[in-house]
Amino acid sequence: MAKPMFGTWQPGDPELLDVPVESESRDCGGTAHFLPSERKRATFDVLKMTHVIDGGAKATKRRRWIWSEGQAFDNSRNYYLTREKLVAQHNKRFIETHKKFTGKFIPSVRDIMLMTNATRNGGAFGLHFGAFMPTIMSQCTSKQQMEWLLPAMNMKIFGALAQTELGHGSNVRALQTTATYIKDTEEFLINSPTLKALKWWPGGLGKTATHCILYAQLIVDGKEYGFHSFMFQLRDEHHLPLPGIEVGEVGPKIGDNFTETGFLRITNVRIPRTWMLMKNQQVTPDGKYVKKEKKGGGKSQYSTMLSIRAALVMGAGYRLAQGVTIIARYSCVRSQGFVNPEKATNRLAAENVILDYQVQQFRVLKQLAIAYAFVFTGKYIQQKFESVGVLTGESAGEEAIRELGVLHAMSAGLKALCTFSAADGLEECRKCCGGHGVLLVSGVAQMTVDYLTYCTAEGDRIILELQTAKFLMKSFASARAGEQLATICDYLRPVSDKQFSISKIPVCNAKTIQDFCDLDQLIQLFRYRALRSIVRASSRYTKKLQEVEGVQAWNACAVDMVDASRAHCYYVILRSFVLEVGQVKDLQVKTALSRLCALFGTIHMQDNLGDWMGHMTPETVTALRDTVRHLLQIVRPNAIALTDAFEFPDCVLNSALGRHDGKVYEALYEAARTSPLNETDPFEGYKYLKDVLDVNFIRKHAKMVKSGPIQLKPKL
Amino acid sequence: MAKPMFGTWQPGDPELLDVPVESESRDCGGTAHFLPSERKRATFDVLKMTHVIDGGAKATKRRRWIWSEGQAFDNSRNYYLTREKLVAQHNKRFIETHKKFTGKFIPSVRDIMLMTNATRNGGAFGLHFGAFMPTIMSQCTSKQQMEWLLPAMNMKIFGALAQTELGHGSNVRALQTTATYIKDTEEFLINSPTLKALKWWPGGLGKTATHCILYAQLIVDGKEYGFHSFMFQLRDEHHLPLPGIEVGEVGPKIGDNFTETGFLRITNVRIPRTWMLMKNQQVTPDGKYVKKEKKGGGKSQYSTMLSIRAALVMGAGYRLAQGVTIIARYSCVRSQGFVNPEKATNRLAAENVILDYQVQQFRVLKQLAIAYAFVFTGKYIQQKFESVGVLTGESAGEEAIRELGVLHAMSAGLKALCTFSAADGLEECRKCCGGHGVLLVSGVAQMTVDYLTYCTAEGDRIILELQTAKFLMKSFASARAGEQLATICDYLRPVSDKQFSISKIPVCNAKTIQDFCDLDQLIQLFRYRALRSIVRASSRYTKKLQEVEGVQAWNACAVDMVDASRAHCYYVILRSFVLEVGQVKDLQVKTALSRLCALFGTIHMQDNLGDWMGHMTPETVTALRDTVRHLLQIVRPNAIALTDAFEFPDCVLNSALGRHDGKVYEALYEAARTSPLNETDPFEGYKYLKDVLDVNFIRKHAKMVKSGPIQLKPKL
Repeated sequence: MAKPMFGTWQPGDPELLDVPVESESRDCGGTAHFLPSERKRATFDVLKMTHVIDGGAKATKRRRWIWSEGQAFDNSRNYYLTREKLVAQHNKRFIETHKKFTGKFIPSVRDIMLMTNATRNGGAFGLHFGAFMPTIMSQCTSKQQMEWLLPAMNMKIFGALAQTELGHGSNVRALQTTATYIKDTEEFLINSPTLKALKWWPGGLGKTATHCILYAQLIVDGKEYGFHSFMFQLRDEHHLPLPGIEVGEVGPKIGDNFTETGFLRITNVRIPRTWMLMKNQQVTPDGKYVKKEKKGGGKSQYSTMLSIRAALVMGAGYRLAQGVTIIARYSCVRSQGFVNPEKATNRLAAENVILDYQVQQFRVLKQLAIAYAFVFTGKYIQQKFESVGVLTGESAGEEAIRELGVLHAMSAGLKALCTFSAADGLEECRKCCGGHGVLLVSGVAQMTVDYLTYCTAEGDRIILELQTAKFLMKSFASARAGEQLATICDYLRPVSDKQFSISKIPVCNAKTIQDFCDLDQLIQLFRYRALRSIVRASSRYTKKLQEVEGVQAWNACAVDMVDASRAHCYYVILRSFVLEVGQVKDLQVKTALSRLCALFGTIHMQDNLGDWMGHMTPETVTALRDTVRHLLQIVRPNAIALTDAFEFPDCVLNSALGRHDGKVYEALYEAARTSPLNETDPFEGYKYLKDVLDVNFIRKHAKMVKSGPIQLKPKL
Repeated sequence: MAKPMFGTWQPGDPELLDVPVESESRDCGGTAHFLPSERKRATFDVLKMTHVIDGGAKATKRRRWIWSEGQAFDNSRNYYLTREKLVAQHNKRFIETHKKFTGKFIPSVRDIMLMTNATRNGGAFGLHFGAFMPTIMSQCTSKQQMEWLLPAMNMKIFGALAQTELGHGSNVRALQTTATYIKDTEEFLINSPTLKALKWWPGGLGKTATHCILYAQLIVDGKEYGFHSFMFQLRDEHHLPLPGIEVGEVGPKIGDNFTETGFLRITNVRIPRTWMLMKNQQVTPDGKYVKKEKKGGGKSQYSTMLSIRAALVMGAGYRLAQGVTIIARYSCVRSQGFVNPEKATNRLAAENVILDYQVQQFRVLKQLAIAYAFVFTGKYIQQKFESVGVLTGESAGEEAIRELGVLHAMSAGLKALCTFSAADGLEECRKCCGGHGVLLVSGVAQMTVDYLTYCTAEGDRIILELQTAKFLMKSFASARAGEQLATICDYLRPVSDKQFSISKIPVCNAKTIQDFCDLDQLIQLFRYRALRSIVRASSRYTKKLQEVEGVQAWNACAVDMVDASRAHCYYVILRSFVLEVGQVKDLQVKTALSRLCALFGTIHMQDNLGDWMGHMTPETVTALRDTVRHLLQIVRPNAIALTDAFEFPDCVLNSALGRHDGKVYEALYEAARTSPLNETDPFEGYKYLKDVLDVNFIRKHAKMVKSGPIQLKPKL
């Protein structure tokens, strides 16, 4: 195995605190002393911060153990692998790593989130364990579970979840694959009747899976019953597709190319009746459709999705934190610009590191604050969700299901917002690296494109945000009627007053830097904005309903609805951050986090000032902007400590720019020297150049270029 | 050559206006009728719009001719090529295409912009012609030009421009490569004394170039004279590096991988004294440094850069327009969501195309408006630049140079803003495609990542914006002093009044949709915002100067300075758009453009409302938001016509989603079927799967899956 190119730091290694100032030389970039001296500037104990992020020392230990499994793998050549090799490598590593734990260890959703964050690979197997198996558990009868669950758990078969089609994703009711019951043979006849009906996108479906859960429109005696799920076998014992089945992979993607995502076309394939997943309904042998009475079905349905969304929100924070770790470190070792340009007399004059420039601080620390905010928001949903679950236990009552419903509605908008914001944030981190951020070995370039699929997976942004908006409109109506509100929407309470009007709310009374650093003040400001957005969207909707039908009215306000969802979600995010700060016991950690939280809130306000128009005066805006600048200065010394606290090992970041030891130039040079295009010289394209180049001219001039000892002219 | 996979439409082909409604079937996606019917909805003659974009019928003809050169090439397999093949392909195609024009045709900067937009490939040769040769022309003596220029023009040698180093980009004064004069041999000794001194990033340097212009710190008799340029030969007649020279490519990038970008390490290499580019200064044989008096040097220096920046701004518009063409077309054929979800009884109920959803309209038409705005801004700079040049002719006077200086200062911020905004916009177009936008065959995915390098090329965003801000601060001081202002800054005039205060400016008097559709009103609003941003930045700077030194004071206001630059640039952009609308003669085209222009302005305001805080009341904000919604509705029918007008051929878009004929599902399926990972089955990773799969279980169950004729159970 080649020596990892981008350093080998692991959590727990000595922190290299006392590296002397390193001088530049022919082979030395002269940057190794920067990060140790940055680490000395931290105002808190980094390990204590790590525990806060993980949720306690025990959780830190578990995470370290999970991440340690990947340390044996060398990722540094991954940037040069073909798609085929990447996909094969994923298979090799996953099976090697997981074989030894088969049957012994069941990872939690959070564990899986941590695994995918370390490998940056949801991959085919993630969906086998994360989607195929849970569906068996939730939709199969006990007998069916006996048949399929154990082989799946022991990796004797691999499955995918085939729902989305070429023509339909979000509108699941319009899925076109059909499953027609044939009474005579007690089979379902499966077909892809149109081109749009091809299954499209399921991870692992194309090359890896032997089976899938197939969603198809059930037809019995000519009557359609909507989409249902079926066990479906794709491949035989030689891993070749069964007759009537065309299965393959949809082609290379902008990122995430170690995951193969498949397509499936089915032509007149029959499966046994007993392969329909029959826990909640079944077709009897003689063709009767029987639906079972649901018990707490709502709850279990919410549970899986909520748990996944909490992980996606927290995962967005973790991914962004990876990018921020790289740019924070690089910004502290990259020097560019003389300390005093006017007095600099030559090329060797002292320079600033780029994190000392205000705009770089603004861009980098903003993303740092967002990363923390998302991690804490994910934790908040998960905790809330668990507390509801624990409270209700076996006897899932009405209220628990209602609470879960609220969480669920909220989590839609949060998933949408956090994944998009993380994707944008990663790209911003990449851009903050300047030119070198374009290179794949920067690490952050590949991170950015690999993360993009998360924006679409599990639902399109706008559709999810509109779901949250729908919930907010309901809550608004409840508030109007003076009914009880979920805690998270209690800022709507004022509208129960018939005299209520936004314009009557007194203007913001934060006036100083101190005011804007006060987290309770910020919470109030975010509550105001959420209230105002919802009032605006609602009043427009009400007005439109008088003109056109419901669906059209809704569409005519969709931009406002999306705004309302975001305003609400940002309140939830800030609130989660503030709640987390409130729980921290260590004073130094608490202070550092509190500042970061205020930075999150105030930068968000500065970027979206229009939302507070009328509520703030020009003077308060000046104070707000001063607060941002003030916070940038005091968060700046903690930039490295706050990113170190996530403990991403070098082999995970896989970045020449984000090395723990800061030796970026050595790493960049080494990576370039050994990149594939440099393996041959002249390169393949030379055969075309030869057609036009003037060899004689080049030969003649080459002789004028000398190296080696200087031959002095003889003195006359 | 394989048949192009993504359609073969070329400008001038019949427009397929009368395609009957296409039904879905097993092999047909049922979408071919959508775009023809959209094309019928256009409110203007598309060809007339094309002429406006190009700048007249003659320019349209020239552009079509330029783009026609690329039509012979099949790009549809490009998404599957390795880096090595991509780079080689670029060499092959470039040389094939250009050999026949050698010496016969000199492309303008705009021609080159059009070429790179059609190939999406600046590439090694773009820099040979666009940077290496112009530097020879501007910095070489006539004798040196005789030596190098003709071989370069005839592609007998290929050159790169080696300025940026591993450790330094923006701070050019800190470049570390040295050129030490050796009097005895009349040579320069060239060295890369440190790791940071490696040349890094020049396009074409690594594998293609035989020569480069090398920027190095000139040292004569131990004294440093700052950086100077030298002709430097890299390779011999076998295209192998000369002794003392290590040259290669920096490695794969996030995009733009058909361009090889090089690194260069020089160890004790000597070149003749006469290879220093000596038009403006020279080192005499006996080691005297002689600087020539400059004649109009300022002007010629501005000229090249300005011309390039104008092309970059216009190019940003063209690139974005490519992405918008794809998403506009896809949004008109992709159906998702029942027209009436409550009444939809089965999977075949009627659906909306996604462009009929307000949020999709907002996102897509916003980018469409931005694309037009940038194209017109590029045209404006180019025209302004040409008019200054023409006016002054040979006798470049003081004033012409001053005018060019203003344009130059402004173009820095514009280049920064437009390239970033286009990159963001392309990614937004990609996201608007939903899941399918993740596929490389979407076209827009590759476009997005290929464009990203433009954000950093020619200078980092923030540094350029701060240059513009510096100019704005000077203009502000002039305005204060009552001095004459460049037309583009005349909104600063009010500050000459000693009693001036922002708060005294009366609030915005636009109150209705009609008001906000009035382009003059919008211009006033953008002028107000620019004025206000500059006043704020300036007053903060003045205050800071009393506390700290100049450089620190500047850094402490950098975020405000960047805001000021953007506010000014958006005014320039809107103004360019409005000026263009004013010049259009055809009434239908003028009306359509005027609405698009208003949409650009109002969406920008809605997105950045905070900048008008205090200047607008809640009522005016409501009117503004109503205007946006109104404009979305009336621009919507022109979405396809406005993108068709750019006339991007299918082979340029290379997109399964953005085909001119709208047959997206056929194209997606065909591309998936033939993608490389599907060439073998089972795939390479199967060898690892085999280790764990249960062959017996799979074989047993495979027998239960049937295809072929149904065998009925014998009746009892």
